[in-house]
Amino acid sequence: MNKLEQQLAFIHELDKLKTVYRKTMVKPDNNRQENSAEHSWHIALMAQVLKEYVAETVDINRAVSMLLIHDIVEIDAGDTFAFAAQSDLDGQEEKELIAANRLFGLLPEAQFNEMKALWIEFEQAQTADARFAKGMDRILPLLQNMANNGGSWVQHHVSRTQVLKRNEYLKNVTPALWDYACSQIDLAVERGWLVDQ
Amino acid sequence: MNKLEQQLAFIHELDKLKTVYRKTMVKPDNNRQENSAEHSWHIALMAQVLKEYVAETVDINRAVSMLLIHDIVEIDAGDTFAFAAQSDLDGQEEKELIAANRLFGLLPEAQFNEMKALWIEFEQAQTADARFAKGMDRILPLLQNMANNGGSWVQHHVSRTQVLKRNEYLKNVTPALWDYACSQIDLAVERGWLVDQ
Repeated sequence: MNKLEQQLAFIHELDKLKTVYRKTMVKPDNNRQENSAEHSWHIALMAQVLKEYVAETVDINRAVSMLLIHDIVEIDAGDTFAFAAQSDLDGQEEKELIAANRLFGLLPEAQFNEMKALWIEFEQAQTADARFAKGMDRILPLLQNMANNGGSWVQHHVSRTQVLKRNEYLKNVTPALWDYACSQIDLAVERGWLVDQ
Repeated sequence: MNKLEQQLAFIHELDKLKTVYRKTMVKPDNNRQENSAEHSWHIALMAQVLKEYVAETVDINRAVSMLLIHDIVEIDAGDTFAFAAQSDLDGQEEKELIAANRLFGLLPEAQFNEMKALWIEFEQAQTADARFAKGMDRILPLLQNMANNGGSWVQHHVSRTQVLKRNEYLKNVTPALWDYACSQIDLAVERGWLVDQ
């Protein structure tokens, strides 16, 4: 295969992310489950809209690039629920690494290295760009559940502590959105959408 | 509403793009119709993967931003088929402008102006960034149809001339992809997926 053919093989493979369904519901589409491709679009655009709330120095274009690729490994490794039991997550990290090698490995070598490094940076969340991207990935389902009578939280009996812990990435990278998330979590508990513990 | 509330109203509204279904089929998901949100993700990422084939000077981040917002107007104005009859397109331009004003208008003024200008730039395709973005929007369905036994072309009796005309944006901005598109169109005619006229 020449270089272009490798790149097109990757682009064709991406179609499969449209078949990976998450726990979050798309309320305006008869409350069907959201897939990871449309989620990735939503979150990349959200990051651009909310970039002014970043307290650290963030390269928004790198954050957007991370968000566009952050879920690709799910094509092979599947989506894991944000609040899954630890036993359901055993081996997931290794599965995702194998998936990253196969999927980004469809690309020519330089692009493989670049995308894999970007995905690992997102996963490890040790840079401001990655923390911001990760924060976006955490707050979007919160917004969707709040607009949907608790959505997947109610269905899966999720607690306040779980959602607070999951959104902690926001705390330093974007304090304004962390404050907003906390206020929404309080409201969700009040409304009985989150278990009060 | 304060500024953040305006931005969140826009982010919530975006959910509706996941309900706008296009003619293109998602082959790996039981050949269901593709929605414009997942399409926008696919194309933004494709632009990044194929950026090296650009012959003009293109700011890839601006092109990606355009692609993330290029279909938002469909929330109000609906998707139009690429090969619709002219009579089906009457009034569409005006409908989309009204949609742009309402949808981007949910945002604070500075972001409204920025996003609307970016969308208009994409629509008019008078800059290299917009021509590249537009070229991506034209070639992705071609790739999808080629991987799907002609897909929406076969269903809607589309001709070689129509597809060639539609992909002409590629010609100057990315000659390598234009050549590839032409070769694929020849193949599609050979296979009976495109009407030979």
